[in-house]
Amino acid sequence: MRAVDLIIKKRDGKALKDEEIDFLIKGYVQGEIPDYQMASFLMATLIRGMNLEETVALTRSMVESGKQLDLSFLPGPTIDKHSTGGVGDKVSLALVPLLAACGLFIAKMSGRGLGHTGGTIDKLESIPGFRTALSLEELLAQVREIGCAIVAQTPELVPADGKLYALRDVTGTVESIPLIASSVMSKKIAAGASSILIDVKCGRGAFMKTLKQAKELSRVMVEIGGRMGRKVTCLVTPMEEPLGQAVGNALEVKEAIETLKGKGPRDFTEAVLELCGELLFLSGKEKSPEEGKERAREVLLGGAALKKFQQMISAQGGDERVIADPWRLPQANLRWIVSAKREGYIKTIDAFKIGKAAMVLGGGREKKGDPIDYGVGIGLRKKTGDQVTLEEPLAILYVNNRERLEEAQDLVEKAFSFSEEPVERKFKPLARISNA
Amino acid sequence: MRAVDLIIKKRDGKALKDEEIDFLIKGYVQGEIPDYQMASFLMATLIRGMNLEETVALTRSMVESGKQLDLSFLPGPTIDKHSTGGVGDKVSLALVPLLAACGLFIAKMSGRGLGHTGGTIDKLESIPGFRTALSLEELLAQVREIGCAIVAQTPELVPADGKLYALRDVTGTVESIPLIASSVMSKKIAAGASSILIDVKCGRGAFMKTLKQAKELSRVMVEIGGRMGRKVTCLVTPMEEPLGQAVGNALEVKEAIETLKGKGPRDFTEAVLELCGELLFLSGKEKSPEEGKERAREVLLGGAALKKFQQMISAQGGDERVIADPWRLPQANLRWIVSAKREGYIKTIDAFKIGKAAMVLGGGREKKGDPIDYGVGIGLRKKTGDQVTLEEPLAILYVNNRERLEEAQDLVEKAFSFSEEPVERKFKPLARISNA
Repeated sequence: MRAVDLIIKKRDGKALKDEEIDFLIKGYVQGEIPDYQMASFLMATLIRGMNLEETVALTRSMVESGKQLDLSFLPGPTIDKHSTGGVGDKVSLALVPLLAACGLFIAKMSGRGLGHTGGTIDKLESIPGFRTALSLEELLAQVREIGCAIVAQTPELVPADGKLYALRDVTGTVESIPLIASSVMSKKIAAGASSILIDVKCGRGAFMKTLKQAKELSRVMVEIGGRMGRKVTCLVTPMEEPLGQAVGNALEVKEAIETLKGKGPRDFTEAVLELCGELLFLSGKEKSPEEGKERAREVLLGGAALKKFQQMISAQGGDERVIADPWRLPQANLRWIVSAKREGYIKTIDAFKIGKAAMVLGGGREKKGDPIDYGVGIGLRKKTGDQVTLEEPLAILYVNNRERLEEAQDLVEKAFSFSEEPVERKFKPLARISNA
Repeated sequence: MRAVDLIIKKRDGKALKDEEIDFLIKGYVQGEIPDYQMASFLMATLIRGMNLEETVALTRSMVESGKQLDLSFLPGPTIDKHSTGGVGDKVSLALVPLLAACGLFIAKMSGRGLGHTGGTIDKLESIPGFRTALSLEELLAQVREIGCAIVAQTPELVPADGKLYALRDVTGTVESIPLIASSVMSKKIAAGASSILIDVKCGRGAFMKTLKQAKELSRVMVEIGGRMGRKVTCLVTPMEEPLGQAVGNALEVKEAIETLKGKGPRDFTEAVLELCGELLFLSGKEKSPEEGKERAREVLLGGAALKKFQQMISAQGGDERVIADPWRLPQANLRWIVSAKREGYIKTIDAFKIGKAAMVLGGGREKKGDPIDYGVGIGLRKKTGDQVTLEEPLAILYVNNRERLEEAQDLVEKAFSFSEEPVERKFKPLARISNA
């Protein structure tokens, strides 16, 4: 088998066999197939596509490129959750402790932020002392002990994904459904949970811009999971405006804490309960997603999830006093108010622009490895559907470095669009695709 | 400007600006843009295509990547010729001396063979002592002195092409009209001639399999030449069966000598005269291609072209006695006859299979840098349209190493197809596209 012949086969729109895909992936991870051949293959794949059999084969080869976790020793249902990434998406921070408080077991691996989207690991690292780099042994021990942990991706699992993703990032081959689906699913399969929920973000703040794309990606991921013996549900949820009010690392941790205290923004709280309900159903703990959501609400309001978050922070070396005193989190020096220049109803808030503004303030990375300023970000005072009067505050910028304040302010102002008519706000998922 | 943004632009089917293409090519040649980004860009280009403006910009950037020859000091019309490559295509060996004998000046740079196609440089190197690696100074001095020279491509001219071609070869990005056109034309433009003739081979033995592809490639190359101030004619000529009778390095040199003696195969002789006639017209020496062809025939039959070939061999250090005594060229030890297993008319001879058979016998390279056995090859005793009786010889294999003889014999047998009806043979070019 020669790599160039397989590249040409894909370039000409033909489907590759399982062993051909395996040859490419194993050869690439072992350094026998060079970056330039893989880059050419990835571009051919992005343009020509892959059928489901190819995408499953790709996922399997990626899973087999590294270690796989065995969670069968845990005394309860094992679950996992993934979000395709958005702006203000602090779901994992609140959901993971809530799931554990409901009796589920979750060893969650998360990523860092890049571009306009944030990353769960960066957010957690804004908590003083919090360790995200646990060994696999530490991770499994903590999950057995308290039911949950959130750690950074380790290259021990799916090394193919790290290598492929770095290459895709610089070769214009990120936006491909088979490549995204295999990247997400290989990591979830290798992480060992039986039931997997994927929150597929859709809208201008997300990678998937249209509902059609988001549903297609969901169908592919659900199929892959099914063929590899996992229960998978994908919820397509809107990412037009940011989720919740806070965008920025410490600000989002604070909002997650508020939410676990029952005082969070409605859209964010509902999203967390919805996802928790799905996982209680998917793992067999409840008879329907609706009953699952009711159970999740009871547990949240009872305070058990907040306590679990505190336990998790403590177990991972973080300062658990942030739960009672969120002012112990990093704070920005300056607050800058962005006010409404007209009155009316908020029609939309462009999540992409808000995410970019948070990055410009120092809260995110333009390129990998850039440092992060944990305290900065944006607090939205108005959300879609809200009525505003002239000069009313729309958002607050939390600023340390004033150099790029003007640029950030401009982005935030332009993110808001207005309507003279009342605007209805949607909380429900846009689509649900499941093999359960 | 970032390479990844330009890759994405091409991936999404948009046209790049001149300065964007220049950024990519210059950056690649200088090592600032890595192979993997260029590979991804080349695949996107192959699939999405390039418009004429982009292809001209690409050619110009490639030309500017190295030295350019100035031939204006020569006391007569400067011309150049290129063939897109075929089986038994020894045209340059006979045409270049014929052109010089007609009063034209040609500093011809040629390539080596790869796969099923041969290369002029390998063929010339079968002449004992022949030097193909002249310096640019030696090359120009010889052309001023005797009117012609054939040398190997030098990396001083169009270094971008060497680097790009090596990458295309291993990344499945060879078969792209804008990439082929810019590769051919950049080398011809940099080599400095005013009038350029391109022999675009078309058929199963060529890169261009269909007339449509060949005409499209021709149109693009003629346009590029015109926009860069050169007179260009493309002749699309058939490459279904091999050209002439000989396939193999020394065998082809011998056939070129026979042809300059007026005793060559009809198809090959006509092809050489046709191309010479076009160049006499293109360079302004004759009023029409037809008159040019008649002039070329006179010069050939007068023996001046044979004498010029002898001069050229001598000037480049080769043993000029091969002209009188072709047995001084490398000879194979064994001759193996392939006979007809049925009677009828030859319908076609698959040039690809014959070329591959010559490679299998050791006359060509499976991969770059493989050694070549100059004496081996194939002599076709029958060509398309010939009538054959049972057991009549179809071809003779010239063999040194018998290990793969059976494989070669099988390829040659399978190359011939038969008809019960008489078959008409075509000698004329399939299309002529010119800016003159």
